[in-house]
Amino acid sequence: MSALKGACIIGQSGGPTAVINASAYGAIKTALEEASITRVLGALNGIKGVLDDNLIDMGQEDPQELAYMKYTPASALGSCRYKLKDPDVDDTDYKRILEIFKKYDVRYFFYNGGNDSMDTCNKISKFMLKNGYECRVMGIPKTIDNDLEGTDHCPGFASAAKYIATSCMEVYHDARVYDTGMITIIECMGRHAGWLTAACALACAKGFGPDLIYLPEVVFDMDKFIASVKAVYEKQGKCFVAVSEGIHDADGVLITEYAGKSRARDSFGHAQLGGLAAYLANEVKKATGAKVRGIELSLLQRCAAHCASQTDIDESFATGEAAVKHAVAGVTDRMVGYERVMVDGKYTCNIKLFPLEDVANTEKKVPREWINEAGDGIEQGFIDYALPLIQGQTKLPMEDSLPRFVRLKKIKA
Amino acid sequence: MSALKGACIIGQSGGPTAVINASAYGAIKTALEEASITRVLGALNGIKGVLDDNLIDMGQEDPQELAYMKYTPASALGSCRYKLKDPDVDDTDYKRILEIFKKYDVRYFFYNGGNDSMDTCNKISKFMLKNGYECRVMGIPKTIDNDLEGTDHCPGFASAAKYIATSCMEVYHDARVYDTGMITIIECMGRHAGWLTAACALACAKGFGPDLIYLPEVVFDMDKFIASVKAVYEKQGKCFVAVSEGIHDADGVLITEYAGKSRARDSFGHAQLGGLAAYLANEVKKATGAKVRGIELSLLQRCAAHCASQTDIDESFATGEAAVKHAVAGVTDRMVGYERVMVDGKYTCNIKLFPLEDVANTEKKVPREWINEAGDGIEQGFIDYALPLIQGQTKLPMEDSLPRFVRLKKIKA
Repeated sequence: MSALKGACIIGQSGGPTAVINASAYGAIKTALEEASITRVLGALNGIKGVLDDNLIDMGQEDPQELAYMKYTPASALGSCRYKLKDPDVDDTDYKRILEIFKKYDVRYFFYNGGNDSMDTCNKISKFMLKNGYECRVMGIPKTIDNDLEGTDHCPGFASAAKYIATSCMEVYHDARVYDTGMITIIECMGRHAGWLTAACALACAKGFGPDLIYLPEVVFDMDKFIASVKAVYEKQGKCFVAVSEGIHDADGVLITEYAGKSRARDSFGHAQLGGLAAYLANEVKKATGAKVRGIELSLLQRCAAHCASQTDIDESFATGEAAVKHAVAGVTDRMVGYERVMVDGKYTCNIKLFPLEDVANTEKKVPREWINEAGDGIEQGFIDYALPLIQGQTKLPMEDSLPRFVRLKKIKA
Repeated sequence: MSALKGACIIGQSGGPTAVINASAYGAIKTALEEASITRVLGALNGIKGVLDDNLIDMGQEDPQELAYMKYTPASALGSCRYKLKDPDVDDTDYKRILEIFKKYDVRYFFYNGGNDSMDTCNKISKFMLKNGYECRVMGIPKTIDNDLEGTDHCPGFASAAKYIATSCMEVYHDARVYDTGMITIIECMGRHAGWLTAACALACAKGFGPDLIYLPEVVFDMDKFIASVKAVYEKQGKCFVAVSEGIHDADGVLITEYAGKSRARDSFGHAQLGGLAAYLANEVKKATGAKVRGIELSLLQRCAAHCASQTDIDESFATGEAAVKHAVAGVTDRMVGYERVMVDGKYTCNIKLFPLEDVANTEKKVPREWINEAGDGIEQGFIDYALPLIQGQTKLPMEDSLPRFVRLKKIKA
């Protein structure tokens, strides 16, 4: 494969995570060091930054300052939830992207996002190929949802999981200090896959976790739920429940929608969720008369850089680095993911490449065998899977004992 | 002062904090080492444990395991919200306490709590004195609310403040990733004093904090609030707001109660709060049409041991230790607090004793001069006050990269 010389664009898309910038930094740092890459451009707000010619020159950033990206949560380049149309129906956006690529002689495109972003990558790659414009396109995954196919796990999941497990262990203690009755319901993110909610089980493994855990992988039955909470509460005087925002009934109707919440959907057709914990708390209160507290982990769970997994940070950095190195070596049309290899019973993680089209728009769910038969608890298989991923305390740099996050100059290209 | 030999009781009361156990451990460890103290008893669920003769023998705990108390959040001995009656009206409880004290030859009573607990301490002390029973009574403060009179600050405040400031810095990043409009409202605890909400300003000092901060020290005007949020939003396309759960209108009506929330009150006459962020988010949404997200920090802010201030942990331990040492030396009827001494411009903290009756049932508010004139921001005076308190990352022991919290045997006395 001949060396392909040209600029690269790096963009970020979708909901942010605590470590998405570690991946982006891995790509940016490596690209800045690669001789074949003549210029490293950051697309502000993902593909919208390309369409709007809103690009910044990463080479103009101070390298020492840039290094803080590795530990800064959320998308430092800005994100978007922009869905490219089917190019056979409307190729306006694609033509515009090609125009921008030509303008800056972009030969490498790295897109850092979830399954929707892999779809974007895939469509751009196919369009460039069809139009005879040589450009290597690589997807760098991120998603707290951990729902991308192929890869063993997704960058961002472990840090959110670690925060959730840690917070559960702490809330467990707080919610039991009085000798009066108390029911606590904690709500985790995860529209269709229950990976994050399952992470509450890591707290159970330490003896300080929820009594009941409900994932969207299992149909949620309100009567059964109330009965189970009652049973635990009557026995212990306390009950600690974890629910996924995505739990739904047998007809697929979200329990959140029971609360008469807005059915407004975002541009990917996802329903806007939230408020489930408060709704369930109210239902449980009506049914039991107990004091019930609903806690929604909300944005906190996906931006808690201070509680990130150093394993996740390092692996995320490695995906960005690998995306650039493989692209320079001639690879295109691939998402950089992980392969778990157990060496003498110990977890190790290898980089593995996956075809974009296999990953785009997929959703990997928690295997049914990792959920107990009753559908209200998590089995050891999940603990064995998740525990190695959350290892290591973040090396987040501090200033006055508060996080030292990156400050980019964002100089326009 | 002659040496007073006998057993001691240690109890915990009121809402837990991330470091209340550091104080209790300071007292327990020191008491176990003191020759004058013949036996160290833990009262389960505070004064209720005394009334119910529900005491555990702290000397039977494994010392190495006990040491984990220093980093375990919430009240390891259990808590209560039990208000002793005025002894002139009904002295039943006091007689029962005296009976238990006599049964176990209790000569030292250490009570670890907030202003209500200092009231309990004070009443017990007066009753024992009146009845000629020699017993030294010491209050060991704790409250995330930071509202105790006399002491420079309260054990527990700094850790909650650090968690709040850190979370604000993280949410700030998450809430700005899209180029679409977004308003975020974060709700902090603090019924009558705005110390915790003011802690959001520590994030502002780092450039990543709320645009508007509302404390209960200033009358909350809904129209003015909406106008201020609108103004920021129209200018930036984003607006980040922090509110205290205790904000109220000119008539003293809590804004939470506007939402038709339960006016149920606990046994101290406090209104049960919560749900303010969601309520305000809805009001702001109606007024602006923007996407608005309400985040309630809920219990997370008071039990986040993983983000505790090591300064707070060490100082909290020192209050427990000092309570025992001073009591053994002859002191009684005092709360152990802090005095700030600046040495060459650097913060140092000395232990100082305060008469219980000066502290009982008081509420120290955020000084008006630390709040800006408009009543929607925090001045540098508060930053200078709070920043030294949050210094140092917790040395929380970990197991599998999750917190290793204490497991007490709780052997009955």
